[in-house]
Amino acid sequence: MAWNFAAGPARLPDAVRERAAEELFRRGPDGACSVERPFTGTIFRATLAHARLRLAELLDLPADYHIVFMAGGAMHQFGLLPMNLACPGQRVAYADSGYWSRRAMTEAGDLVAAVEVARYPGESALAAPAAGGWPVPADCAYCHITPNETVDGIAYPELPDAGPVPLVADCTSSFLTAPLALEKFGMVYASAQKNIGISGLTAAIIRQDLLERSPPELPAVFSYRRQAAAGSCVNTPPMLAIQMAGMVFDWIAGQGGLATMAVANQEKAACLYAAIDGSGSFYRAPVAVAHRSPVNVRFHLAAPELTDRFIAEAEAEGLYHLRGHAHIGGLRASLYNAMPLAGVAALVGFMADFSRRHG
Amino acid sequence: MAWNFAAGPARLPDAVRERAAEELFRRGPDGACSVERPFTGTIFRATLAHARLRLAELLDLPADYHIVFMAGGAMHQFGLLPMNLACPGQRVAYADSGYWSRRAMTEAGDLVAAVEVARYPGESALAAPAAGGWPVPADCAYCHITPNETVDGIAYPELPDAGPVPLVADCTSSFLTAPLALEKFGMVYASAQKNIGISGLTAAIIRQDLLERSPPELPAVFSYRRQAAAGSCVNTPPMLAIQMAGMVFDWIAGQGGLATMAVANQEKAACLYAAIDGSGSFYRAPVAVAHRSPVNVRFHLAAPELTDRFIAEAEAEGLYHLRGHAHIGGLRASLYNAMPLAGVAALVGFMADFSRRHG
Repeated sequence: MAWNFAAGPARLPDAVRERAAEELFRRGPDGACSVERPFTGTIFRATLAHARLRLAELLDLPADYHIVFMAGGAMHQFGLLPMNLACPGQRVAYADSGYWSRRAMTEAGDLVAAVEVARYPGESALAAPAAGGWPVPADCAYCHITPNETVDGIAYPELPDAGPVPLVADCTSSFLTAPLALEKFGMVYASAQKNIGISGLTAAIIRQDLLERSPPELPAVFSYRRQAAAGSCVNTPPMLAIQMAGMVFDWIAGQGGLATMAVANQEKAACLYAAIDGSGSFYRAPVAVAHRSPVNVRFHLAAPELTDRFIAEAEAEGLYHLRGHAHIGGLRASLYNAMPLAGVAALVGFMADFSRRHG
Repeated sequence: MAWNFAAGPARLPDAVRERAAEELFRRGPDGACSVERPFTGTIFRATLAHARLRLAELLDLPADYHIVFMAGGAMHQFGLLPMNLACPGQRVAYADSGYWSRRAMTEAGDLVAAVEVARYPGESALAAPAAGGWPVPADCAYCHITPNETVDGIAYPELPDAGPVPLVADCTSSFLTAPLALEKFGMVYASAQKNIGISGLTAAIIRQDLLERSPPELPAVFSYRRQAAAGSCVNTPPMLAIQMAGMVFDWIAGQGGLATMAVANQEKAACLYAAIDGSGSFYRAPVAVAHRSPVNVRFHLAAPELTDRFIAEAEAEGLYHLRGHAHIGGLRASLYNAMPLAGVAALVGFMADFSRRHG
């Protein structure tokens, strides 16, 4: 048995992977499999409608929010956010909570004036910015946050207060891992390769008043307004990725929905953090306890020279993709929805054994 | 036996479909299948390098051209072309040869001044614009053509002369169906769902001097220059679509390459057009003979009231997706690389039978 702790592209639920292998490339009576059919035909339209409806059910989607599926990853949204949501000359606000929020701000800042309204305390006290007292100028088009930082292993313990400026959130690594208070956001987006399925697709949930901001000169495929109006079909969408998203949504619903996911994810995270904290400082989790990500568990060895050996021995035990992001090093275990407790138990067991042998 | 004549998403080669079903979702010793692994890891990097190398071999890629894989479809390029290739205030040139070239021009025209430099003669004499004497202003950033019009069934019999202005071509429906004289273009692009694999991916072949035009403020994922520099990995690319593209390129190479494809495609087209032209005007192909697309065969019934019956009876015989594009109606059979002569023979046989019964 091997376990894949990659941060994304990441493990698919076993049932989804098996269903995909079984269904996606099987031809029907029309001589075509899913990806060989017109995207304007009744079969794909039903596939798309199913994915959208299932996601709406999982999210308990408020009436004035729209689900839009778009090609590409979350980074595509980094540029599309200011293009769609900011008027000419209008500023945008960004909170820096780590690697990905900084990249989002940098990309937006190449297009419009980006104001940094909050910053994580820094390497000495890894944590999300404090949630209160953000100096968000009221004229900003939106305030962008990254509720869970995949690279840094940092999560906001509570949502920040941006005043009257709509919050826009890159939820890629936390999407569908717990219930989401959508009504607190103007827009939420997530690329698919962590909790929705495979890369090349992003789901965006956009409130009606933000949708209406897309300027008319924006190319149709990049316009939130026009994509929403066209039901995500301005052009041929990433059909296979959307079909797999529907399978993942079915699986989550079958497990009991987002509340069930949250309980399972907390249990997995608690198990792994307890192993780290109880290791007598052999392993260390650097993020402040209240700000630790439940899905991207970042840790390192007190003896960093053992890191490569840890990774090699872990792989020999069937535990893969535990190396931290190249940007910060160390170790990281990603425990998205598809990772069962059994995988975490295997990792914890190996960690205890490794620390006995090398401690 | 059923045959799928859809214009795209379209039929995959049988061998590719079978290989995809077999390989894509099978987990390896690391507990991960292709789409579950890091895109920065050695396995996906090898997959990507293989696809790029195979495509370079098929195209006999000149040294100063770069292959870039991007998320989304050809319509994504409609906006990205002027964003990347035109300086502020610079005009762009477009030839109107049918439905898709017009859409490309409209999208660009929302961003920059687009000059129409040639136009197809019109419904009375369906044909590509004449190839010579185009009034392309020398200050234009590029001149855009659509060598094969998927909807209209029109193909340029020879490449037009745009003078010193670089030709940029949307080759989506003709890509890899015949050898391509790349050195005559500044850039060529094609979305994947006709001749490369599945939707959600576009291949772009860009000459070095055009690559260097991308302005620094363009978001990284949309920048030809930065995507080329990052080996198409500015962010997580559409991994499954790229892997399938590699399988399609392998298959084409195994068939003998683009020259072999061209011979087979000409044979299929000749077979179907002969059936239409030899039907005593029961079937009619409206496009001027020299301008007929070899891969999108557009035709209609002299008695248009029989169209729905034709489609229903064809489906009863296992011949699917023959209805013409909603924009112009009639009938259309798409005969891309993956359609064998046997499929065309089945269609021609049905057409003869239908005309006997209803003629």
